[in-house]
Amino acid sequence: MTEASTRYMENADLIAIDWGTSHLRAFLCQLASDNSLTLLATSYARGVTKVTQGFEQELFDCIAPWLDHYKQLPIIMAGQIGSSIGWQETTYLPCPISPQKVADSCLHFACQTQQLAIIPGLHCSHENNHRDVMRGEELQVLGWLAQNHNHLHGQHLICLPGTHTKWVLVESGQVKLFKTAMTGELYDLLCHHSVLIQDSQGEFCPEAFASGAQYTLASALGSFIHGLFSARSKQLFNELAPEHATAYLSGMLIGSDVRAAINATEWSFQELDSVSIIGSNTLSQRFAEVLTMQSITTTRYDVETITLAGFSSVYQQLHHADKL
Amino acid sequence: MTEASTRYMENADLIAIDWGTSHLRAFLCQLASDNSLTLLATSYARGVTKVTQGFEQELFDCIAPWLDHYKQLPIIMAGQIGSSIGWQETTYLPCPISPQKVADSCLHFACQTQQLAIIPGLHCSHENNHRDVMRGEELQVLGWLAQNHNHLHGQHLICLPGTHTKWVLVESGQVKLFKTAMTGELYDLLCHHSVLIQDSQGEFCPEAFASGAQYTLASALGSFIHGLFSARSKQLFNELAPEHATAYLSGMLIGSDVRAAINATEWSFQELDSVSIIGSNTLSQRFAEVLTMQSITTTRYDVETITLAGFSSVYQQLHHADKL
Repeated sequence: MTEASTRYMENADLIAIDWGTSHLRAFLCQLASDNSLTLLATSYARGVTKVTQGFEQELFDCIAPWLDHYKQLPIIMAGQIGSSIGWQETTYLPCPISPQKVADSCLHFACQTQQLAIIPGLHCSHENNHRDVMRGEELQVLGWLAQNHNHLHGQHLICLPGTHTKWVLVESGQVKLFKTAMTGELYDLLCHHSVLIQDSQGEFCPEAFASGAQYTLASALGSFIHGLFSARSKQLFNELAPEHATAYLSGMLIGSDVRAAINATEWSFQELDSVSIIGSNTLSQRFAEVLTMQSITTTRYDVETITLAGFSSVYQQLHHADKL
Repeated sequence: MTEASTRYMENADLIAIDWGTSHLRAFLCQLASDNSLTLLATSYARGVTKVTQGFEQELFDCIAPWLDHYKQLPIIMAGQIGSSIGWQETTYLPCPISPQKVADSCLHFACQTQQLAIIPGLHCSHENNHRDVMRGEELQVLGWLAQNHNHLHGQHLICLPGTHTKWVLVESGQVKLFKTAMTGELYDLLCHHSVLIQDSQGEFCPEAFASGAQYTLASALGSFIHGLFSARSKQLFNELAPEHATAYLSGMLIGSDVRAAINATEWSFQELDSVSIIGSNTLSQRFAEVLTMQSITTTRYDVETITLAGFSSVYQQLHHADKL
């Protein structure tokens, strides 16, 4: 628990839970007069795939001190906790979809005298009829939409880098569609299990990163699978130091991801303003750099601020509808 | 040792060793009147990265019964045994290169009164100035060149599927250049360590394979990294049975590999005759199927026959040059 726990005596309005595969992050929140959420305390526990003694116990152990103090607080959860391997399964809602509809579709249930709600994930269809899904990132998209009235008009593209990058097209205040790239997962697999990387602990080399990104950005036909091996052959010929190979690989993967986004038929960068990036500092910086290499302007958002804005948006709608 | 060991009493001319990362395969061979090698016996031992008590002991334990009988035989080795993690390091020879030059560049050394030779690997540069390397597959390319006089004229493309696919351009009897794709390694990583596959033991489904291949073959910009995730989203919407997901993934990867080969700027399929495929039965069949989907004719070659033809080619040249 952080030093924010010293603010216990203030009024809390809700407990927001971001419960993913690896981690549970609990936020004790107060609704401010400007409708933003003030963070009073945070607490951490195990992710969905790491829980051993049941989801109920994991959650209530994690937030026990808060409930001891406040007795009763609405709990809103998002992420894999609503998946088929989670606590209660929520169906993926079809896009295009409005923030209201997402909030209206929350799954409500009671447990240990508390009222809980799970925010459902989303799905969409691409032009080639393939489907895509998200679960967890919709919270950041709702937060981004709620943060600025300008975001409710026109077309915008949001990039959420992570284990899986999500590129989300927002139009007239609705989530229109999105595309997933396995960039982060591929990076981890190739770093730790492939012939490409001998030294996965090397420090980040900006030049190697840029060189990797330029390679895949420039490959006219996006022949990613034929280009990957250059991470190894460059080391064999002393064109790449083994300790810089991870940066080169990261550049190749993010370059390939950005290139695919630029060439996606579902949107046109010519018709979009700057790309909004929501993610960890390190990853956001890398995506911004590669997009800048392609003369695309970017705007970065703090992921915790946006996450809390998402919970605030859902909380207010549920509260007004008397569902909490 | 196989039942071929009953042919001990015949004259043997050499011991050929294909010594890769995972396995050592030893062939006791006799040179036939048509210059092909007749296989008298085979024996297996550990690959370069699995050897625990030194390369010398691993090799001589493996072929001890043959040396007991024949006392002295030339030993020719190919594969990772000549790499920086092998027994004796050979440098990569630059392409374009002739089979004569490869044989001339063998590394010779003596051990336990036997004469040994290691065939070096090859390297080449692509149009984008990136380098590529091979070590081991050059043996099959030499075998393919030696097998038919027509192979010594004109331009030909050879596909060698495996952990890393090698696409080799042969021109006027020389190895001109080649490209590596990490298709097999990516398949193994994604099968065993990613969110895409829940059931890696399912039986092969031809329809799922074809569907995966069509997906990547048709993706106009080769957006492989944005397409991979469909292996998961299809399962979530019951469009792909979990036990068929490996076949779908295999199709996607081979489709992407073939698509990149078709669009490679280093050769033109319009100017090539049928693609020659040398590899395991299963993989060769899958690559042939995907190439056929793109109206490209293929010719398949038995990998053991071609490997022995490669050893025969090198053996004859070393023998004539009095180097063995």
